[in-house]
Amino acid sequence: MTTKSLLSTTIQSHGFLRTHKTLFSIQSLNPFHQFKNSNGLQCCLLNTKSLPFTTTTTTTSSSTKFCTKSVLSETQYEKKPYSKIGANSIGPIPPEQLLNVVEIAAKTGAEVVMEAVNKPRNISYKGLTDLVTDTDKTSEAAILGVVGKNFSDHLILGEEGGLIGDSSSDYLWCIDPLDGTTNFAHGYPSFAVSVGVLYRGKPAAASVVEFVGGPMCWNTRTFSALAGGGAFCNGQRIHVSKTDQVERSLLVTGFGYEHDDAWATNIELFKEFTDISRGVRRLGAASVDMCHVALGIVESYWEYRLKPWDMAAGVLIVEEAGGTVTCMDGEAFSVFDRSVLVSNGILHAKLLEKIGPATEKLKKNGVDLSLWFKPENYFTDF
Amino acid sequence: MTTKSLLSTTIQSHGFLRTHKTLFSIQSLNPFHQFKNSNGLQCCLLNTKSLPFTTTTTTTSSSTKFCTKSVLSETQYEKKPYSKIGANSIGPIPPEQLLNVVEIAAKTGAEVVMEAVNKPRNISYKGLTDLVTDTDKTSEAAILGVVGKNFSDHLILGEEGGLIGDSSSDYLWCIDPLDGTTNFAHGYPSFAVSVGVLYRGKPAAASVVEFVGGPMCWNTRTFSALAGGGAFCNGQRIHVSKTDQVERSLLVTGFGYEHDDAWATNIELFKEFTDISRGVRRLGAASVDMCHVALGIVESYWEYRLKPWDMAAGVLIVEEAGGTVTCMDGEAFSVFDRSVLVSNGILHAKLLEKIGPATEKLKKNGVDLSLWFKPENYFTDF
Repeated sequence: MTTKSLLSTTIQSHGFLRTHKTLFSIQSLNPFHQFKNSNGLQCCLLNTKSLPFTTTTTTTSSSTKFCTKSVLSETQYEKKPYSKIGANSIGPIPPEQLLNVVEIAAKTGAEVVMEAVNKPRNISYKGLTDLVTDTDKTSEAAILGVVGKNFSDHLILGEEGGLIGDSSSDYLWCIDPLDGTTNFAHGYPSFAVSVGVLYRGKPAAASVVEFVGGPMCWNTRTFSALAGGGAFCNGQRIHVSKTDQVERSLLVTGFGYEHDDAWATNIELFKEFTDISRGVRRLGAASVDMCHVALGIVESYWEYRLKPWDMAAGVLIVEEAGGTVTCMDGEAFSVFDRSVLVSNGILHAKLLEKIGPATEKLKKNGVDLSLWFKPENYFTDF
Repeated sequence: MTTKSLLSTTIQSHGFLRTHKTLFSIQSLNPFHQFKNSNGLQCCLLNTKSLPFTTTTTTTSSSTKFCTKSVLSETQYEKKPYSKIGANSIGPIPPEQLLNVVEIAAKTGAEVVMEAVNKPRNISYKGLTDLVTDTDKTSEAAILGVVGKNFSDHLILGEEGGLIGDSSSDYLWCIDPLDGTTNFAHGYPSFAVSVGVLYRGKPAAASVVEFVGGPMCWNTRTFSALAGGGAFCNGQRIHVSKTDQVERSLLVTGFGYEHDDAWATNIELFKEFTDISRGVRRLGAASVDMCHVALGIVESYWEYRLKPWDMAAGVLIVEEAGGTVTCMDGEAFSVFDRSVLVSNGILHAKLLEKIGPATEKLKKNGVDLSLWFKPENYFTDF
């Protein structure tokens, strides 16, 4: 551990620190304000009120020994250098403007949902158990209004309305006007409004408004992130957990409406991880589960068969909170992929020891996990 | 359907209606204020502001046809007359006094937990464990103080401190000072303080303070019930849902720390019901899950191997909200049993078609589901 002084640090608008060319992001949930730059260098700000301040630089061990309830491998593992999923550039739009419109769009949808949350639901069905409500549609219309008013030439992919706009645009908005419709229909926490915008196929800015509580005590919590600019909850910088052992982890997963081989494989993963961790939660809204990883209250989340509008915002919020995002086979992730594994980063390789082979087996058995919902003619950097 | 006028109705202090000798309870979550008496008679109050009012009495069909994703039996079923689990008498203590002390006890514990939940999280896991342990103990001590001050001669069974007091007492307090400790440790909703008091072995009064939200937005919601007096959330009368089809149900279950045959059976039930319902949630605090059934936001909850302090409050709140409580084999339930199935009542028999045989099989294979944690010499009515 080394200690050094950072004399020329300035705190920037969205709560992250720039020291010369090194970007440090603030972790506000711990007693010591902790920082991590894009290379994984961790620092600890001892006193935020007395700049210039002292930082401590720590090195995280790349190998950890596990001891859990059931049989776990005793092998040590190396941390794989996973690809970043956020956009390297967010294009010609000023970052503050892009983030501002994303946040307003999500907030506008959330106002529609909050208006409906205590009223009887008008439910129709996409499938036997796949619900859609009037609120889904009204929320999406409100969000489209905000995006269209600000960026009339952008391409939009909404859960309800499909693809709208100009496919030659570099920007693609991925909108879930009500993620967790089943929970919403029952008044069960949590559900959310999720808005993410891609630049050339990669997440550039994101906002998720989570509905928490339930009847008698509804409330919201707002997550947002900008590629390279950190992740925030209600305006405070957030960071993934530092938990480095599976048996001390709380995990969360989801099960889609199609009950096929991938579904059965994930039931098996649910069982295996319930056995060896502190528990696997099943809450029911992908964007919320990912924000919970970013907030550091669970260590990891995975699911097969999500759509771009389920993931575009959540994955950026996790990455900007210091976490790692890949497909469930461990390969580089895009929002058009059909599986996602997000984690606090530290545990990613260890989780993949079980999740990776299970996913490879699915692929070998012919389960299609190739890209989907990628708009034709939409240009991407990958 | 018949319609009749109730001319001599008065609204009483805790929000329930008494019409001559018939007790009706208010369901406040629906657009029409609905009532149900202890015999299952359902009424609908069309306008609460213009008494005397008109009620409509409805009859629920005893048989329903199902059509779900996987194979479900097409057989029609009869609703079984399940035993009530609440105390027929709450003994010599005035009901208002007993309920008041139960509510103050739970609130006092919750104040301890709220004090701890807002403190910065310790990044050391040893510290995190210590924090949980300290909070458990401090909350229980605070609750014991309230009970002891009001009823020094009562018997108390606490999760942390075990059995305290006079086993010749007819009253047994079952206290979980922090139900859902794993969630508490992670800042993950939900967890709760649960206080239930038995009279001669049967639940007489109950209060559960649920913690909802999470970092940046902690809040609480208080459930309470008195045997024969209805169930309430934040002072408003609550009622179980009216959902009568499994495929339109949201369910919730839990998995204990012991990973034995009962655990494996419940993983299988989780899979089966995930397949045929709108989803099975896994949230992590028994008392909270039961209160959610009472609130009507999920239709059913079940779990093996719970302890009296996990169940004493929740089961009464469900029953007083109009729900049904049995063991997972369908037999009459006491809080000293090792399994519980709570539901909105309408679905109970249908759920037991799967859960009952699975539990019978466990018993045949030698899994012990007999009574436990029943204090020696404590007198019960069963």
